[in-house]
Amino acid sequence: MKLPDRAFLERLADAAKAETLPRFRRGIDVVNKDAGGFDPVTEGDRAAEAAIRRVIEAEFPDHGILGEEHENFGTDRECVWVIDPIDGTRAFISGLPVWGTLIGFRRNGHAVMGIAEQPFTGERYVADGSHAWYSGPDGKRQIRTRDCTSLEHAILFTTSPHLFSEGTENRRYKSVESRVRLFRYGVDCYAYMMLAAGHVDLVIENGLKPYDVGALIPLIEQAGGVITTWDGGAPDGGGSILAAATPALHAEAMALLTAG
Amino acid sequence: MKLPDRAFLERLADAAKAETLPRFRRGIDVVNKDAGGFDPVTEGDRAAEAAIRRVIEAEFPDHGILGEEHENFGTDRECVWVIDPIDGTRAFISGLPVWGTLIGFRRNGHAVMGIAEQPFTGERYVADGSHAWYSGPDGKRQIRTRDCTSLEHAILFTTSPHLFSEGTENRRYKSVESRVRLFRYGVDCYAYMMLAAGHVDLVIENGLKPYDVGALIPLIEQAGGVITTWDGGAPDGGGSILAAATPALHAEAMALLTAG
Repeated sequence: MKLPDRAFLERLADAAKAETLPRFRRGIDVVNKDAGGFDPVTEGDRAAEAAIRRVIEAEFPDHGILGEEHENFGTDRECVWVIDPIDGTRAFISGLPVWGTLIGFRRNGHAVMGIAEQPFTGERYVADGSHAWYSGPDGKRQIRTRDCTSLEHAILFTTSPHLFSEGTENRRYKSVESRVRLFRYGVDCYAYMMLAAGHVDLVIENGLKPYDVGALIPLIEQAGGVITTWDGGAPDGGGSILAAATPALHAEAMALLTAG
Repeated sequence: MKLPDRAFLERLADAAKAETLPRFRRGIDVVNKDAGGFDPVTEGDRAAEAAIRRVIEAEFPDHGILGEEHENFGTDRECVWVIDPIDGTRAFISGLPVWGTLIGFRRNGHAVMGIAEQPFTGERYVADGSHAWYSGPDGKRQIRTRDCTSLEHAILFTTSPHLFSEGTENRRYKSVESRVRLFRYGVDCYAYMMLAAGHVDLVIENGLKPYDVGALIPLIEQAGGVITTWDGGAPDGGGSILAAATPALHAEAMALLTAG
């Protein structure tokens, strides 16, 4: 059975980049696809996913595809691609180079390979099935999470404190935030890239979709970290996500996120 | 009288970059200089400011210098340099490429030239005394703020919602945040670079030091924007800062920030 390799993941990212980067910081149109809130979708988002799908369909026509922008198919097949062409659309429309293109490859329900890319900075983070790799303006190297084993030394990222509903959920999140060395808001998928590369230690989010995490699960795991739902379940379905640099740090955070 | 030019500003930024970039994402040491809170200072911060000062002192020995990391002198002179070698130290230690080196040049108390740089992405934003310029991986161009004249269309940045003390200050900030199209947290000086380049429309912060804004004042002004304190005063002393893409947008936000 033919399976994808690292070079194929890079071809997919190249195809996406050709659609996203020329539209970044170019006065793009924003379509409000959710009348109840602000959920911008750019032309680049739609075009990049279409480009990724064309490359997959030409090479692996029997694989399923689950994406953010176009219709899903074959999501119960052995091999499924999970695609978010522009994760962090708010960063994208604000000109910030902390959005990313996320492409994950699932086999039998669990993500086993993935690529996360920031096209403007030229950074690429790849999980090849057993190891995690970085390439960027300062070279290429294997990456590993940092050896941080307690909250008091940890740097925590979350996209926004407004992610968490008032009450139990917010209290549980704050119980972690109040114990870490440093926390930062506002970076979406880029937070997981920094976690995999050993620059930060913890990411806590909720309300994620499967395509928000499909590429990031193998990246965190193959860099030596742990990624689950808040209650320790498989992360592939999205929802509430806890990613940590080490098993010990993950356990300490999870105890707080499931208490009280 | 000999005055600095754009090429000199670039020389200063080059000197700083040689100290900051090699230390970015390299497991730097963090010194906690404020026992009461988290205020990291890196070796890069100190070394970059020293490097900038050496270049200034060699070329303009009669100019004053106001910096974050080393002792100030001659701050009442006609010409004064205002330096923040690494603005956004929390971004720096988290691996995020949204920190910056800020070097402003004041004449008779008002900042008239400045450079703001992100060394990892290779972006440079320069105010040369009359115009604002961008250079980066996608080329060089003159930049202008965006033609956004009302809050309902505006994108707002602030470093953190925790900047604003409970009560009047927080209520006034929220009265603006609740009216904009989109708001984002977490980018320090990079927000002003995005404002000058026409990607976002509004930045609201407080508790700023003079060296946090010295380089950014001429950048915003020479790109066509308006930057003042919340009550419309001169921004050179720092404090509470409101920066907007247009005079109309500035007026609408200022009315809310000074009301009630």
